[in-house]
Amino acid sequence: MIPGDSAEFPKKATLAELAALIGGTLEGDGRLEIVGLASLEDAGEGQISFLADLKQASRLEKTRAAALIVPPGLPPFPRPLIRTPNPYAAYAKVQTFFSSRPRKPLGIDPRAFIGSGAEVGEEVSIYPFVFVGSKARIGKRVVLYPGVYVGEGAEIGEGTVLYPQVAVMDRCRVGKRVIVHGGTVIGSDGFGFAPDQGGYVKIPQVGTVEIEDDVEIGANCAIDRAAMGKTLIRKGVKTDNLVQIGHNVIIGENTVLVAQVGIAGSTEIGKWVALGGQVGVVGHIKIADQARIGAQSGVAHDVKPGEILSGSPAFPHREWLRAQALFPRLPEIRRGLSALEKRILDLEKKLGGPEEPAKEK
Amino acid sequence: MIPGDSAEFPKKATLAELAALIGGTLEGDGRLEIVGLASLEDAGEGQISFLADLKQASRLEKTRAAALIVPPGLPPFPRPLIRTPNPYAAYAKVQTFFSSRPRKPLGIDPRAFIGSGAEVGEEVSIYPFVFVGSKARIGKRVVLYPGVYVGEGAEIGEGTVLYPQVAVMDRCRVGKRVIVHGGTVIGSDGFGFAPDQGGYVKIPQVGTVEIEDDVEIGANCAIDRAAMGKTLIRKGVKTDNLVQIGHNVIIGENTVLVAQVGIAGSTEIGKWVALGGQVGVVGHIKIADQARIGAQSGVAHDVKPGEILSGSPAFPHREWLRAQALFPRLPEIRRGLSALEKRILDLEKKLGGPEEPAKEK
Amino acid sequence: MIPGDSAEFPKKATLAELAALIGGTLEGDGRLEIVGLASLEDAGEGQISFLADLKQASRLEKTRAAALIVPPGLPPFPRPLIRTPNPYAAYAKVQTFFSSRPRKPLGIDPRAFIGSGAEVGEEVSIYPFVFVGSKARIGKRVVLYPGVYVGEGAEIGEGTVLYPQVAVMDRCRVGKRVIVHGGTVIGSDGFGFAPDQGGYVKIPQVGTVEIEDDVEIGANCAIDRAAMGKTLIRKGVKTDNLVQIGHNVIIGENTVLVAQVGIAGSTEIGKWVALGGQVGVVGHIKIADQARIGAQSGVAHDVKPGEILSGSPAFPHREWLRAQALFPRLPEIRRGLSALEKRILDLEKKLGGPEEPAKEK
Repeated sequence: MIPGDSAEFPKKATLAELAALIGGTLEGDGRLEIVGLASLEDAGEGQISFLADLKQASRLEKTRAAALIVPPGLPPFPRPLIRTPNPYAAYAKVQTFFSSRPRKPLGIDPRAFIGSGAEVGEEVSIYPFVFVGSKARIGKRVVLYPGVYVGEGAEIGEGTVLYPQVAVMDRCRVGKRVIVHGGTVIGSDGFGFAPDQGGYVKIPQVGTVEIEDDVEIGANCAIDRAAMGKTLIRKGVKTDNLVQIGHNVIIGENTVLVAQVGIAGSTEIGKWVALGGQVGVVGHIKIADQARIGAQSGVAHDVKPGEILSGSPAFPHREWLRAQALFPRLPEIRRGLSALEKRILDLEKKLGGPEEPAKEK
Repeated sequence: MIPGDSAEFPKKATLAELAALIGGTLEGDGRLEIVGLASLEDAGEGQISFLADLKQASRLEKTRAAALIVPPGLPPFPRPLIRTPNPYAAYAKVQTFFSSRPRKPLGIDPRAFIGSGAEVGEEVSIYPFVFVGSKARIGKRVVLYPGVYVGEGAEIGEGTVLYPQVAVMDRCRVGKRVIVHGGTVIGSDGFGFAPDQGGYVKIPQVGTVEIEDDVEIGANCAIDRAAMGKTLIRKGVKTDNLVQIGHNVIIGENTVLVAQVGIAGSTEIGKWVALGGQVGVVGHIKIADQARIGAQSGVAHDVKPGEILSGSPAFPHREWLRAQALFPRLPEIRRGLSALEKRILDLEKKLGGPEEPAKEK
Repeated sequence: MIPGDSAEFPKKATLAELAALIGGTLEGDGRLEIVGLASLEDAGEGQISFLADLKQASRLEKTRAAALIVPPGLPPFPRPLIRTPNPYAAYAKVQTFFSSRPRKPLGIDPRAFIGSGAEVGEEVSIYPFVFVGSKARIGKRVVLYPGVYVGEGAEIGEGTVLYPQVAVMDRCRVGKRVIVHGGTVIGSDGFGFAPDQGGYVKIPQVGTVEIEDDVEIGANCAIDRAAMGKTLIRKGVKTDNLVQIGHNVIIGENTVLVAQVGIAGSTEIGKWVALGGQVGVVGHIKIADQARIGAQSGVAHDVKPGEILSGSPAFPHREWLRAQALFPRLPEIRRGLSALEKRILDLEKKLGGPEEPAKEK
């Protein structure tokens, strides 16, 4: 039996099958039957566990797991093992195997609303109280939870899941295998107003949002539509909850935005960038590939490839480590300065006061 | 008549009844009839008001309130009084009496969806467009506002109120007398991805969220389900709006999280802790009981019981007060340093230059 | 033909008509027919574009726009022009003309719920799964997207648009021509709890929220109802996404709150104030008219009219610019201090040590 979505639930696999699934090296009896995965502390009979980091090897001592996924460097350990260079990813794959349930598609619940001219693919699950606007396109195997709104002419790609109350506004496009958690709004108007004659004129936000394949967006985020053109979230981007993405922003492939990050309009972020929690980024700048920004930082200027920054405003992380360590010692620094001044004054008095030397010249 | 939920509305009570309700000491005519509560400035005929703090006693001068709830230490004042050590809590209780309306339960509106095998208690109010998943359990007197989503196998305890568009995802548990404000998502996936072969593998979030009794959660919050095990919000916790709680976080009893706080995964927060607005807390740390963290602080290390911290990164609040006061004076400090250097140089010249003393040794 | 909402779509206008619409000065053939607006880089045949700022005049070189909206100071340029002192506002007006579509009102969809005693004006669009509570009042031409909740006795003014899943809780009032983006909650309970006997007593939030005319509120915001009285958002206020406004806050006319701003209870903000992204403001203070606060700042004290502040805690922006520039140089400052101390010690040794001078007196 090859593990797969069509398996019965609860699932089972032999250790050899799991080793094949994760591409690891088996040590021990491959016929051992595994029925689930748990942490080292919680795993029991029939369960596999994993050690992600050799530094935590002491956690192995008391584990009752039936088998273990471990890094190559672990010394011999008296339990059936699967060795793999990336135990954390292996854990993800094994957990996915054990936790993914074959779901029979619901079809379109009669309490959902499907607008005229909307196209809905096969094997979808469209729950009650979902609204699909006219001319929208819903791909195969899409799951739309209760309260989801898909606007006029919007597109949702194959296998994408929109959790409850997600709104994808008109004409926005969401790719394949995307996951959007509850309450997130994709395609709200960008924030643009022109001051004029004692008030503001709203700048119509006529662009859209495009979200590429394999993206995951957290709960209660807001991703604004472009003023013109599109706000673009590229392949593989992952955002945590409560993230704000302004109009015309571009987020590069596989970039990670931790919770409560805010990115102002027209900023462009590269690939494999990581922004820590609560980071703020001003508009109209570029953050290059593989940059990493520490939590709560504020980024106000372009960032070079691979740079690691912290602080508000942000500067190189290593320098920030030194500077922030001195911040609590500012009172001591100032006291030091006063003490030196006193000593200098004493010296100056001995030598005839601070003013005289100048006169003597 | 004893004040209670079954009273007519608008409500009335005698001053003696209110004194009994709040456990206070009556001074004046207990038969006085009170019909409502308002602030000292707004209260008029038939209304009671309150003074929370003796420091604000000057606000009493112009009040037209018919009676007052006051602290024990207030000097005699020519109005019927109820004295109590905690006038603020007394205000809350009296306001609750006057504002709570006996609501006839709606039952289950036919436009709501109740899944197969779901159990729904008595005297509930389930509004139109509510979705209750299969095998979910809804306790007695629960109120589910329009657009609420309760996932498969989720549990909602007695007397709990979920405001519009709240989502409680599958298998999550919400205790008794809990209030969750609009748009909050309980049980979105934790943020976990393992880098692997040019992309990320999603780590299935197979755990749940458990919210104990008497908790209140603000609007548009996100509380992630655990990777394994549970995210736990203990009894009496109060969170403000737009709060982010990561997977496997534990929040201790009666802890208060002000708006826009973000807590990363697996962090454990004790009892009676207070986190100010926009505070960020990294993952995998412990904040002990009764700690207090100032607004906008960033907490990156364990915090001891009762510690009061501020800053990003956070350090003891008293020290932070001194350090932050000097931050605007950094230019002055540096100028001071330059001035001293110049004076030292002058002294050194007088004594034969900075290098010579070393040679003389 | 005078441009207007009743025009056919897609729309056309002559250059002379557009000049009249924006009150600008025409240079060139007013009969030129324009069919749309695009950026300088994207505009092509039949499209108008705009130059907001003379500093960007080099962007004109390659534009293929058929006509241009430009500032008065632009040197002669070989294309039909409309000159206007505020090209950005002119762009907004022209874009509004081209993008606004005449929508036939939907009326009240039979899948919406309208409570008893609710009043609904003419020409509304009330989508499926909208809930309008009893005695609520919905003005003319209001658009309520799917999933909108309007509580008991709430009021929505003429021409207002509430996007999907917006909740306006009971008794709250929203003015005319207001736009509220998806997921925002207006009228959640303010955050008020009185500690009492080992727990908290909830302070009933019996007040409301009032939002005046021409306000725009972003997606997934939370605006709390007052404890007593009202939380007040005055005419023309614009808030971005994920903004938190506490109970009893007052926001003055035309004030702008950028994304993820948080304002604690009872604070009063003046007119034409601008708060940058992620700014936090404590409760019970006043920020006067036309103040501007930099992104990520923390405001803990009253702010005077027109003050420009940055930092957490915030102080004058000009001083902040100097201080923050020195923050990364704290290690250098401390090293400088140590170096001076060493030099002083050398001087002191030459002159008989640091203590002797005192004795000699």
